[in-house]
Amino acid sequence: MSDNEQRHKQRQQKLKQKVDDKVAQAQKEQGVLLVITGNGKGKTTAGFGNVMRAVGHGQKAAVVQFIKGQWDCGERMVLQQQGVPFEVMATGFTWETQNKAADIAAAEKAWAQAKAWLQDDSIDMVLLDEMTYMLSYHYLDIDEVLNTLSSRPAQQHVIVTGRQAHRRLIELADTVSDVTPVKHAFEAGIKAQKGLDY
Amino acid sequence: MSDNEQRHKQRQQKLKQKVDDKVAQAQKEQGVLLVITGNGKGKTTAGFGNVMRAVGHGQKAAVVQFIKGQWDCGERMVLQQQGVPFEVMATGFTWETQNKAADIAAAEKAWAQAKAWLQDDSIDMVLLDEMTYMLSYHYLDIDEVLNTLSSRPAQQHVIVTGRQAHRRLIELADTVSDVTPVKHAFEAGIKAQKGLDY
Repeated sequence: MSDNEQRHKQRQQKLKQKVDDKVAQAQKEQGVLLVITGNGKGKTTAGFGNVMRAVGHGQKAAVVQFIKGQWDCGERMVLQQQGVPFEVMATGFTWETQNKAADIAAAEKAWAQAKAWLQDDSIDMVLLDEMTYMLSYHYLDIDEVLNTLSSRPAQQHVIVTGRQAHRRLIELADTVSDVTPVKHAFEAGIKAQKGLDY
Repeated sequence: MSDNEQRHKQRQQKLKQKVDDKVAQAQKEQGVLLVITGNGKGKTTAGFGNVMRAVGHGQKAAVVQFIKGQWDCGERMVLQQQGVPFEVMATGFTWETQNKAADIAAAEKAWAQAKAWLQDDSIDMVLLDEMTYMLSYHYLDIDEVLNTLSSRPAQQHVIVTGRQAHRRLIELADTVSDVTPVKHAFEAGIKAQKGLDY
């Protein structure tokens, strides 16, 4: 083995030791509240990708989509085929409907289904897609939402996506990722495209 | 309508106008190179979620996994069932094998399949999961990779995931998201769990 390979091997062994030590320290098994926020592309796909991961292991997942445009949603088709139940808030983007009372009613209806799933210990993972907006618009009550999340079944994972996650939601969460836009094709005049963006 | 509702409606109309204007300006349709990097949780699930989105619309996608641990991968099971072809680099995490020559050979084999898909205009989307490490470890040649990405079919979307994306890959990309860890359950002693983390 050359000196170069020897050094490579030593570096890798150190790295492996570090990872192994950390893994050995993390032994608790419990439901995780994961918040994926920020202004960059990838929040909803990360949420749906995680649901697919759970479903691929034979786990039960359920999805609430709190904001939905006029477009079809490719990921929903695949997951429904896998037996994943969906609740879709029916009013479309809130700036397309421009009717606050109707939006609140729709948010509350979607939340009622979310709450039922968050009390059902046969469900391993609940995705609350774009729910952050319901809190920043005050369509849902933050105390009600946080209490429901806190008292959910101990092994249930919950994923919340959307921009500008509420400070108190971040405090309650176990894992928080902030997806920061470094650049976006849209700014270069490239339109949203089927398969990539919806 | 109350004053409050009136103000809400005006705000929403302004927001809608702003979004509509931006959408009207973005009219180019072309394949997008999307890089999802950073140290936070959600990069791989975002990539796989995007593949599921494409597949849900009846598009053709292909996946190369450049780093793969000893664990099963829930998302692969679902996508293979949907007919998505996979190329999986066989050596596992590079710090688990600690054999540079074998790692390079494995990386090159996976890249050969990636390259074939990046030249096939019947494929709408290619996911190069965790490919960034192959560049930071110099297992793959950056010029070769960038040239292949640049000369791919015009309508093909490519998604590259992994930490520490190469500066030149970021320059070439159309959309770049940096997934920043705000906090991680692992740091609180919660172990990686099936369905959520793999």
